[in-house]
Amino acid sequence: MKKNIFQQTAVSSESKGRTGLLTTTHGQIETPIFMPVGTQATVKTMTPEELKTIHTQILLSNTYHLYMRPGHDLVARAGGLHSFMNWPGPILTDSGGFQVFSLGPLRKITEEGVAFQSHIDGSRHFISPEKSVEIQNSLGADIIMAFDECIPYPADHEYVLHSVDRTTRWAKRCFDAHNRWDDQHLFGIIQGGIFHDLRQRSAEALLAMDFPGYGIGGLSVGEPKESMYDVLDHLIPQMPQDKPRYLMGVGSPDCLIHGVLRGVDMFDCVLPTRIARNGTAMTSMGQVVIKNAVHTEAFEPLDPNCDCYTCQNYSRAYLRHLFKANEILGLRLLTWHNLHFLLHLMKTLRQAITEDHLVETCRAFYLQYYGKPLEW
Amino acid sequence: MKKNIFQQTAVSSESKGRTGLLTTTHGQIETPIFMPVGTQATVKTMTPEELKTIHTQILLSNTYHLYMRPGHDLVARAGGLHSFMNWPGPILTDSGGFQVFSLGPLRKITEEGVAFQSHIDGSRHFISPEKSVEIQNSLGADIIMAFDECIPYPADHEYVLHSVDRTTRWAKRCFDAHNRWDDQHLFGIIQGGIFHDLRQRSAEALLAMDFPGYGIGGLSVGEPKESMYDVLDHLIPQMPQDKPRYLMGVGSPDCLIHGVLRGVDMFDCVLPTRIARNGTAMTSMGQVVIKNAVHTEAFEPLDPNCDCYTCQNYSRAYLRHLFKANEILGLRLLTWHNLHFLLHLMKTLRQAITEDHLVETCRAFYLQYYGKPLEW
Repeated sequence: MKKNIFQQTAVSSESKGRTGLLTTTHGQIETPIFMPVGTQATVKTMTPEELKTIHTQILLSNTYHLYMRPGHDLVARAGGLHSFMNWPGPILTDSGGFQVFSLGPLRKITEEGVAFQSHIDGSRHFISPEKSVEIQNSLGADIIMAFDECIPYPADHEYVLHSVDRTTRWAKRCFDAHNRWDDQHLFGIIQGGIFHDLRQRSAEALLAMDFPGYGIGGLSVGEPKESMYDVLDHLIPQMPQDKPRYLMGVGSPDCLIHGVLRGVDMFDCVLPTRIARNGTAMTSMGQVVIKNAVHTEAFEPLDPNCDCYTCQNYSRAYLRHLFKANEILGLRLLTWHNLHFLLHLMKTLRQAITEDHLVETCRAFYLQYYGKPLEW
Repeated sequence: MKKNIFQQTAVSSESKGRTGLLTTTHGQIETPIFMPVGTQATVKTMTPEELKTIHTQILLSNTYHLYMRPGHDLVARAGGLHSFMNWPGPILTDSGGFQVFSLGPLRKITEEGVAFQSHIDGSRHFISPEKSVEIQNSLGADIIMAFDECIPYPADHEYVLHSVDRTTRWAKRCFDAHNRWDDQHLFGIIQGGIFHDLRQRSAEALLAMDFPGYGIGGLSVGEPKESMYDVLDHLIPQMPQDKPRYLMGVGSPDCLIHGVLRGVDMFDCVLPTRIARNGTAMTSMGQVVIKNAVHTEAFEPLDPNCDCYTCQNYSRAYLRHLFKANEILGLRLLTWHNLHFLLHLMKTLRQAITEDHLVETCRAFYLQYYGKPLEW
């Protein structure tokens, strides 16, 4: 029924970092990987061809947003999300859980599911685990996610315990409702906040259901980064070697490095695209705020060590001009660069694992980017 | 000193339509041509490579805007406008006249030039004919324009007479101030409102100075289209065959057709890019407002007869979704299509002139686009 989709291909000898091959209906993915986010069936400012030039292997798109607009039925009639957005490669959709829980006072949670009002027009909706899977079946992504309860940080042990058990019951309902096992791989999501015993409880329950892959949810929600790394340190050794591990919503360079060192295979985050549109670039020397006056007459590229389209063709002075003048090309060029930067970082880490110098590579990158040593 | 830059290559036997070859430092241009506008050193939403794919031959950029931001000295230090914006092909800059005159109460005109306040920060500036040429020399475009007085419509005969004579005096000052005749071709601009005698007066004075090309200014400023066509009917026969004729600020399909039929060689306008960003596409069946509900489930391309990137890869339903969701990719895809549409129209007209069926081609296009016969 559901396939074995993941194969570990190399392991770092000094860390838990590993490479793998993830096989989906629309192509194979080399892990560890960062997934650019295309919330509304488009990675903001980018064409699919541009995403190809930076070697994007898989995109993430958001079920909540597509359900609200243009609607999953319309996407299905368009031939599914791949066809609708003209992206022939692998896609992952989230469950919509994170977004509806983020609606705050506009939503109400029961055992059955979540009632909420649209952020667009205030209309009333209800998403249950079954509904989330139905929507994701219509969208047709290669990897789909179980509908989980996403809780805020901080939350006390009892609250998180109840939430973990609900997430387990909802995962079972998603598992039973899923009807496209042949071409869509449903991942369970391990919750449990920062409590080791609850992460273990969640993992054991979900592993027993034998999903083809597992998300690690409820991190990067306000807790200290050390707490996130601590959870990964304890949780990942309990996860099976032959299933992909997806740390959800995480994408800053430091978290990518710490995640990869701990054995994470997949990441996603709006960070690189969002900060690009705010005029911040990730470079081999750290972040660059392009509007700063120091770049006024800087006729050198954003990053002298980068071979992306932006760095090969434009100066910092021109990029600064585009941002000062509110020109869309500026948003495009920084988005292009930032995604290239993170995807290139992941490629560097994969190669470092294969050649077994991951820790050394991480230390060198970290020192260059943050100006201080990696704590490892 | 100044070169002979234009050669007429074919003439329509039933109209004044003609093809020609315009030679500039950065390449040859086949006319008649539409020039996409890159106001702030970027054609909004487009990369230079994308402009190449739609066979853009020459861009227009705005002296006023570049003078205000980032400043012509900075552009010069960047190696000139071609280098700054990464566009290796021909560029034309306007004189800044039209923009400063459009500032209304923020500007004051004297014989010496125009004093005005910046639309960005309110700072005070003065542009004279000499200053306009100095700025344009710094920017380094292939074709630069004389600083002229742009008057509103309607204006009475006496007012226009004085304005025409001032424009003539200013043209002479521009001519004398220009110091890059070897690689920048300075065009004079014929004014005169809708008065035939004043257009003739302006033309005679400027032709006597022997510019390498001529703009036709002060049209499409509120007068009826018939008045514009009437001016062209009378003016163009007085213009030399061996100099390019540039109808400034005009770019709707009907005006392009009527202009070409009357012997115009060059056009520019923000129309195709501006309406694209508002969600309006030019198609072989006329205008399409992409947000309209009728396109909700329209899985066919914007224009079935178009081979642009947008029409080859995306449905109307997807484009509508992008606009409803305020996604930048929507602005890109409609801009790309509209510019392709107008540049393709110009190519069709050039071919029709060469094959001597211009009027027939114009009639067929017009009927299809506007749903009514061309008046010719």
